[in-house]
Amino acid sequence: MLEAAPHRFPLRVYFEDTDAGGVVYHAAYLRFAERARTEWLRALGVPHSQLIACEGVIFVVKRLSIEYLRPARLDESLVVETRLAGMGGASVRLVQEVRRDGERVALLEVRLACVRLATGRPEAMPESLRGLLRAQS
Amino acid sequence: MLEAAPHRFPLRVYFEDTDAGGVVYHAAYLRFAERARTEWLRALGVPHSQLIACEGVIFVVKRLSIEYLRPARLDESLVVETRLAGMGGASVRLVQEVRRDGERVALLEVRLACVRLATGRPEAMPESLRGLLRAQS
Amino acid sequence: MLEAAPHRFPLRVYFEDTDAGGVVYHAAYLRFAERARTEWLRALGVPHSQLIACEGVIFVVKRLSIEYLRPARLDESLVVETRLAGMGGASVRLVQEVRRDGERVALLEVRLACVRLATGRPEAMPESLRGLLRAQS
Amino acid sequence: MLEAAPHRFPLRVYFEDTDAGGVVYHAAYLRFAERARTEWLRALGVPHSQLIACEGVIFVVKRLSIEYLRPARLDESLVVETRLAGMGGASVRLVQEVRRDGERVALLEVRLACVRLATGRPEAMPESLRGLLRAQS
Repeated sequence: MLEAAPHRFPLRVYFEDTDAGGVVYHAAYLRFAERARTEWLRALGVPHSQLIACEGVIFVVKRLSIEYLRPARLDESLVVETRLAGMGGASVRLVQEVRRDGERVALLEVRLACVRLATGRPEAMPESLRGLLRAQS
Repeated sequence: MLEAAPHRFPLRVYFEDTDAGGVVYHAAYLRFAERARTEWLRALGVPHSQLIACEGVIFVVKRLSIEYLRPARLDESLVVETRLAGMGGASVRLVQEVRRDGERVALLEVRLACVRLATGRPEAMPESLRGLLRAQS
Repeated sequence: MLEAAPHRFPLRVYFEDTDAGGVVYHAAYLRFAERARTEWLRALGVPHSQLIACEGVIFVVKRLSIEYLRPARLDESLVVETRLAGMGGASVRLVQEVRRDGERVALLEVRLACVRLATGRPEAMPESLRGLLRAQS
Repeated sequence: MLEAAPHRFPLRVYFEDTDAGGVVYHAAYLRFAERARTEWLRALGVPHSQLIACEGVIFVVKRLSIEYLRPARLDESLVVETRLAGMGGASVRLVQEVRRDGERVALLEVRLACVRLATGRPEAMPESLRGLLRAQS
């Protein structure tokens, strides 16, 4: 069986993403990775705003680890590759790579939980979403 | 008559506030100024979270201008001085200065509107808040 | 004479851009506007990193005013339109509109100065850049 | 032997730190933790700007993991506790807890490398700094 191709999200490094060290600020990669997850969900047909409006649920980050492999700089073009790495009833695990041309700049592993927005309590993902995710893995 | 002393909010410049130009990123001053406005309201006895919880209203920025006079850098200590410059039924106008030691780094003028959180519509400020603000001017 | 069409820069609103008021955080528009200015310069053939590497100069914001006309929300598609509104020897003035479909969300006027990166001193824009800008106005 | 008390850095949650989910944005904790590390170094007598100016080195984040235990909200007071957890020739490992009153909100483990600013290459920490850190552990 072939593994599904990762979702690819391209982005550009702007001044807002850099710091006085001359490179991309370490926390900016978390913003890049979240943009990529948002577009990955949108490509599945499930934008955040629809999850909130129709289901009253939201994904929150429960755990995240990131390894910084190479610095990135102003004006560079990066791509975030997102792969579903695991799935529970109320959570998903993703692996995300930030790449520049052929090389890896940063590597993330992210665990998201589905929670009810009104209460903040974990909640099983809607079955329709689970079906879409199963088709990815 | 003596003018009321401005509210003073001290802060430190961290890496998150700088960019690859080696100085404080221009949009970071808006965050500094909002922290100062939040503490100015708290000093008046009206924290944002209480305005939201008790009155259902929130202040939003309607108009803002900023002049950048000198660059600021990593690790510097800055102070934001906040003065009430005008007041309408549903809005206030503030002048804010970002200072380093004796000199001015940036100068802001900000117009805030009081809006109902649920609707986003402008709303007269609660009378208790108006009284507190009148005592400032 | 026809006015040149504005430069158009599309973007999406992500969680990072919003605040607990449920709408786009007021300082996020400055980041949107700077991304648009960066792409406007790139479209002219002058990316920031090239200005820095080849000329040793950089554009810094000297003065900015912004009017917030309508709130924007998570997942919305916005466009920043950028027009050159004036030009001096060492500075440019831009008007930028943030739009959602047909309507204006925010309106900015920005004055940028060209400064030598090593000294922070104002410096006349490189003649090649001035020529490109004149062709815009 | 008694373990050294952790360094404690208090902070307040502002609008800039929150997102449309109504809670602190997940990447904001990395900014909080870096502010705390900066003040921890300053308390040791080694502010970033001095490390850069005198030694030409800088600490960069090489690896970071964070677990989100409870949401934090606008206007809350948090404290970041920072402990040195390990030390190599050119790197340190820190454990940082973000706490609200008695309870843990987030837990971070961070590996920093000392690099030469001009080259980005790893470099042994200055001996004076190593001495200060040894006194902490």
